[in-house]
Amino acid sequence: VRILNVPLGERSYRIKIGAGLLSSLGVECARLGFGRRCAVISDTNVAPRFGSRAQAALRAAGFEPALIRIEAGEQAKSLKTFETCCEQLAAQWLERRSLVIALGGGVVGDLAGFAAAAFLRGIAFVQVPTTLLAQVDSSVGGKVGVNLKAGKNLVGAFHQPRLVLCDLDTLRTLPQREYRAGLAEVIKYGIIHDRGLFGRLERDVKRLLAREGRTLEFVVARCCKIKAEVVEEDETETGRRAILNFGHTVGHALEAISRYGRYLHGEAISIGQVVAARISHEVLGLAQRDVDRVCALFRQCGLPTQVRLSRSELDRLLATMKVDKKVVHCEVKFVLAKRIGHVEIGQTVPEKLLRAAFDAGPKNRD
Amino acid sequence: VRILNVPLGERSYRIKIGAGLLSSLGVECARLGFGRRCAVISDTNVAPRFGSRAQAALRAAGFEPALIRIEAGEQAKSLKTFETCCEQLAAQWLERRSLVIALGGGVVGDLAGFAAAAFLRGIAFVQVPTTLLAQVDSSVGGKVGVNLKAGKNLVGAFHQPRLVLCDLDTLRTLPQREYRAGLAEVIKYGIIHDRGLFGRLERDVKRLLAREGRTLEFVVARCCKIKAEVVEEDETETGRRAILNFGHTVGHALEAISRYGRYLHGEAISIGQVVAARISHEVLGLAQRDVDRVCALFRQCGLPTQVRLSRSELDRLLATMKVDKKVVHCEVKFVLAKRIGHVEIGQTVPEKLLRAAFDAGPKNRD
Repeated sequence: VRILNVPLGERSYRIKIGAGLLSSLGVECARLGFGRRCAVISDTNVAPRFGSRAQAALRAAGFEPALIRIEAGEQAKSLKTFETCCEQLAAQWLERRSLVIALGGGVVGDLAGFAAAAFLRGIAFVQVPTTLLAQVDSSVGGKVGVNLKAGKNLVGAFHQPRLVLCDLDTLRTLPQREYRAGLAEVIKYGIIHDRGLFGRLERDVKRLLAREGRTLEFVVARCCKIKAEVVEEDETETGRRAILNFGHTVGHALEAISRYGRYLHGEAISIGQVVAARISHEVLGLAQRDVDRVCALFRQCGLPTQVRLSRSELDRLLATMKVDKKVVHCEVKFVLAKRIGHVEIGQTVPEKLLRAAFDAGPKNRD
Repeated sequence: VRILNVPLGERSYRIKIGAGLLSSLGVECARLGFGRRCAVISDTNVAPRFGSRAQAALRAAGFEPALIRIEAGEQAKSLKTFETCCEQLAAQWLERRSLVIALGGGVVGDLAGFAAAAFLRGIAFVQVPTTLLAQVDSSVGGKVGVNLKAGKNLVGAFHQPRLVLCDLDTLRTLPQREYRAGLAEVIKYGIIHDRGLFGRLERDVKRLLAREGRTLEFVVARCCKIKAEVVEEDETETGRRAILNFGHTVGHALEAISRYGRYLHGEAISIGQVVAARISHEVLGLAQRDVDRVCALFRQCGLPTQVRLSRSELDRLLATMKVDKKVVHCEVKFVLAKRIGHVEIGQTVPEKLLRAAFDAGPKNRD
């Protein structure tokens, strides 16, 4: 078991990473010192698999856990589901000293976290991420929220969890497509901050795809460590934290125009990162060899690296990017790579160049 | 013009109180240093009256203000209206440096404040309260939020405004019923913290009801000062700030069981404060003479002091109180008065005594 610390003053918390941690959920929560009453928020995929184990662990430690189930999938990350959750928290008589436990992937974590942030103007919550994407990214850092019709994550809060429990065993049963989508965030850490990690991912891609235990533990811990450091430096994203958005400006817009139905988040940002790498070549002089390595690694992980868009789809995509949160003065700012392991924020990209980066796709070999 | 400071470190802000301040809205906002784009959120009552003056003042200072109109009334304080507001903020391309201006009463302030708190995970906002209740209470202190079916203000945030602008002229056109409802909060400050203020309200009740300019300026400033001091001591209500909830436990429940349709908030807490005063007599030995003075002042202000409830209505009321935010371990805690000018928080009240306090009403002279 690896233990990391996210040092944020009185909002500090620990991340525990290892196999079989779900059974210690009750004991871990009891150590935090909240009331007996708590609610596990999970979805229709994860609840049947891990819900009763989570509840049993909590009961054994003296808690009275309610189980709140939401629909699986990005569609549930809405204010409508948020309202349903909050009404249920009230119906279950949760009070200020109660704990919300988010058991599931990124959607569950973001939604349950926002419910915890807003219910009674904020109660405590614990993240138990059960997907690779949630373990390496969304469960750490306190960004919670839901989507609007106008775009992803446009409504939410900064609300840090009190604990993040990454049980690597929960990744065993993850569908292949979802597991691969999580690798898109893993690769991102290599590109934005850790050339060594990127190299290791290239070498260990087979072990990674086979979900080999020690490789997984190393990779999840390394990604969480990078995320924790970035969050520590800039908790509310006034500056450097934006490096985590590499590939996300295009990715989010792609999800939005396809109405969150076609792509998993990891797939959308896989395409987004390849587009960002191509733009980086033009704007920051990222070597063509590095663009190719980025593209190849995503491909080896079975992730999409290109998208065919009609002219009108591309127009809609560009318009959607302008309501993204990274917009300042109606100008879209990009995170771009100078080399693998180093990115720069706040980059302006001429629209022409942006359009060209999408056109570049079909001309590739694949 | 009176200027007060709410000292909360980097979240500090000023409250300006005086006649005709609306015309200085643009200049005041410009001094805060945000982007040109902003949105005025108002309701169908207030927007026709003050909307264009607010927009004109903002335009004159270089802003590009959008106007977002919500339905007037407590019913609008819902997650549904919140969603509509957020979608409109996105449609108007507000970004992180943009400003939201809440122009209206408590509902507008709470809703617009929560929209500002959650949109893009938090953007700045300014309060321009146009009702007495909003000027002396809800616009100061950063409590924002909406109601659930399960109860009032169950979802929200602590999000401090950057400025509160109380234009006393906006109170001129306030309907009598709403103005009187605001007096319920004014009287509350006397009971919880300021025996001198309570005495002055008793003496000046006619001037107050006539909305005499200098009396108003004194009273609004005094109430804001008390509120600011309490908020400074305990921004997120972990303790002493709860004194502001005097009369609110019963008041909120009364609003909830009547589905926010029958009573204005001020009317509900008027009844709530009289009930709380009666209970205070039993539990903390509040003198009967003080109970009578409290009851008499509300009555002189034309506010309701009692409610006739059937047995089943009373049962529902008590059940509703248990999902109120002040509940700890499923036990309802009351704020009770020891004497006029001094209250104590965290008081447990036996259910029998609570029921008796409601029954006490009809036996009174009135």
